[in-house]
Amino acid sequence: MKKIAVLGFGTVGSGVVETIDINADVITQRTGGITVKYIVDVRDFPDSPYAALVTKDFSVVENDPEVSIVVETIGGIGVAYDFTKRSLKAGKSVVTSNKELVATYGYELMALAKENGVSYLFEASVGGGVPLLRPLKTCLNGDVIKEIYGILNGTTNYILTQMFQNGVSFAEALATAQALGYSEADPTADVEGHDACRKACILTSLVTGTHITQDKVPAKGISGVALEDVEYAAQLGYTIKLLGRCVFEGGKAYSYVAPHLVSRNELVSGVNGVMNGIVVKGNIVGETMFYGAGAGKMPTASAVVADVTAIATNVRAGECFEWSAPSDVSGDPAELKTKWFVRVRGELEAELAGTADGVSAYVTAEMSEKELQTVLSGAEVVSAYRMIG
Amino acid sequence: MKKIAVLGFGTVGSGVVETIDINADVITQRTGGITVKYIVDVRDFPDSPYAALVTKDFSVVENDPEVSIVVETIGGIGVAYDFTKRSLKAGKSVVTSNKELVATYGYELMALAKENGVSYLFEASVGGGVPLLRPLKTCLNGDVIKEIYGILNGTTNYILTQMFQNGVSFAEALATAQALGYSEADPTADVEGHDACRKACILTSLVTGTHITQDKVPAKGISGVALEDVEYAAQLGYTIKLLGRCVFEGGKAYSYVAPHLVSRNELVSGVNGVMNGIVVKGNIVGETMFYGAGAGKMPTASAVVADVTAIATNVRAGECFEWSAPSDVSGDPAELKTKWFVRVRGELEAELAGTADGVSAYVTAEMSEKELQTVLSGAEVVSAYRMIG
Repeated sequence: MKKIAVLGFGTVGSGVVETIDINADVITQRTGGITVKYIVDVRDFPDSPYAALVTKDFSVVENDPEVSIVVETIGGIGVAYDFTKRSLKAGKSVVTSNKELVATYGYELMALAKENGVSYLFEASVGGGVPLLRPLKTCLNGDVIKEIYGILNGTTNYILTQMFQNGVSFAEALATAQALGYSEADPTADVEGHDACRKACILTSLVTGTHITQDKVPAKGISGVALEDVEYAAQLGYTIKLLGRCVFEGGKAYSYVAPHLVSRNELVSGVNGVMNGIVVKGNIVGETMFYGAGAGKMPTASAVVADVTAIATNVRAGECFEWSAPSDVSGDPAELKTKWFVRVRGELEAELAGTADGVSAYVTAEMSEKELQTVLSGAEVVSAYRMIG
Repeated sequence: MKKIAVLGFGTVGSGVVETIDINADVITQRTGGITVKYIVDVRDFPDSPYAALVTKDFSVVENDPEVSIVVETIGGIGVAYDFTKRSLKAGKSVVTSNKELVATYGYELMALAKENGVSYLFEASVGGGVPLLRPLKTCLNGDVIKEIYGILNGTTNYILTQMFQNGVSFAEALATAQALGYSEADPTADVEGHDACRKACILTSLVTGTHITQDKVPAKGISGVALEDVEYAAQLGYTIKLLGRCVFEGGKAYSYVAPHLVSRNELVSGVNGVMNGIVVKGNIVGETMFYGAGAGKMPTASAVVADVTAIATNVRAGECFEWSAPSDVSGDPAELKTKWFVRVRGELEAELAGTADGVSAYVTAEMSEKELQTVLSGAEVVSAYRMIG
């Protein structure tokens, strides 16, 4: 019987506690049993069935040798960082869904875990419930990974799906997403691509074995996606998806986040709503894709609990998630060549296309962002998207 | 440095040897190095760059203590069975892509591996290069698995995709598949669903922890799929896919293989050509899907080599793949309720529908196969498909 503590009793934290309850029988069969001994939160939960487990004092967990695994679902890089370090130093393994913390201090925390002979696992940090990080390291271990791209953020995928399927504007779709609880009150991290950026950093770090910081991964969000872009995309047989993309070439990693036009022939174009879909290309296996709920209380809890069971059964998965300090492996993603969909405004365009607003749309040959800028120098670029497929 | 032997230098076996060569650098980084010491085959390969490694005598491998891992890519349940047992008894781990052997003697071979303190791994046996079995056991370990269904056979998916996209008949599509090398000279195992059945057995065994024999998993193939069915499906917004499906309910496993009508809203309907796509539903994670090349030389080799690297790095993945002797956990899949698409011929139908051939098509309410048979008793059933989505 393993005793664990859950730090942060919000959406994911409460999902973890409930999952351990709901699936107690099978979890006991598989691991010998997992019990939540403490829930640490600054808030009170007098009406929760788990109220008796709640404490405001983390040091109770830190000093209790019975607690061997700590689940950190606080989020952010403040208290979560502090509690994670203290847990690892106290010889407790830590499991988290906190992508911001992993993307910011992952290397340091994994090193600290190793020093203390424990694990720091974070399957839930990318793709939520989608099995991704562990399969990437254990099932594709005979491959050289050439590229990863995918839908890493459910909120923006919900918004884009609404725009595409119902012809509503970005602002309207965002309002719906907020009303349904798919988006935070402050949607910036989702909408501007910061959340997807953190996940792209984690994926790139895992593949290169080097901690990739967020400043190496330029991120563009979806607030600039216009309904006109969506309509053009549909006419061309494409959808618009916010993709995190990591290309591994010549010893360099080229990673970025941006909205793309994705051909309907690509499976990822059919990943709709809040779902995530991540394509991994290996030099031997070819193309694989991992699909599932990328966020949400229970799917994220599923991945967290799976990591907890891995530690509880001494599967040495901790060694799978390991990378070293930042070093110079990042290339400039502006150099990557793809086709582009561009809309340009100008007098010549207006004459040539005969459009009232003077905007013409083009699909370019394969070129880098730098080449595109040269080609379009002097023109007023209304929108520009890389194309997949 | 681990020394391995590859038994069977056919499609997959040669892919394994080539993968270890092509990716030697990264495999050495990840494992300390893997070398192929022997290739065992009854044939000669005088023109192969690996000719010097080929031997006809398995006992050379069996008696060489330097060989710690044996890759079995012979196929079938004859010599492959014998060599696998002898390898395990000699204290060597065995990795295979041989679904027939795993589906037939898996339990016995895993027990033998355990007795001898070694591993018997077979990630490649289901879904080829698609990471599936290990994620199912390690990433979804906090879930109760409720259902697995998917496209488990690339050849039949290629044929159905051809029928659907190009309007060609089953016979024509099969001929193309054979010409392209996607189907064996004798296509029975693919076309009649036996291959998918073996994979459904392995998946069901993994989830239930009990060896499921093929006689418990009724399999219907695609040779009866008519172009008329395809046309009706398209009109309804469905495709036709050969699915292996395993439903876990009330302590019973209901598994079968049959062609289904799959709604275009389901991601698996977009899995085309020789690709595989397998949906796994857990009670916590919801729906996930795993996609990739389900067969073929290099994708299958990718999964085999990943298993070899797992053993070489002492990841104790062997313990993930474990189930016990057959016992009574199988329910009758005819009891499962779904909507059905049926085409029925009769005088009344001819009058009602006004169709020249007297055939009418219906979509039923949710019912079991037994209920359907009662409803249709007396009628001439031209075709009947379960529907997904």
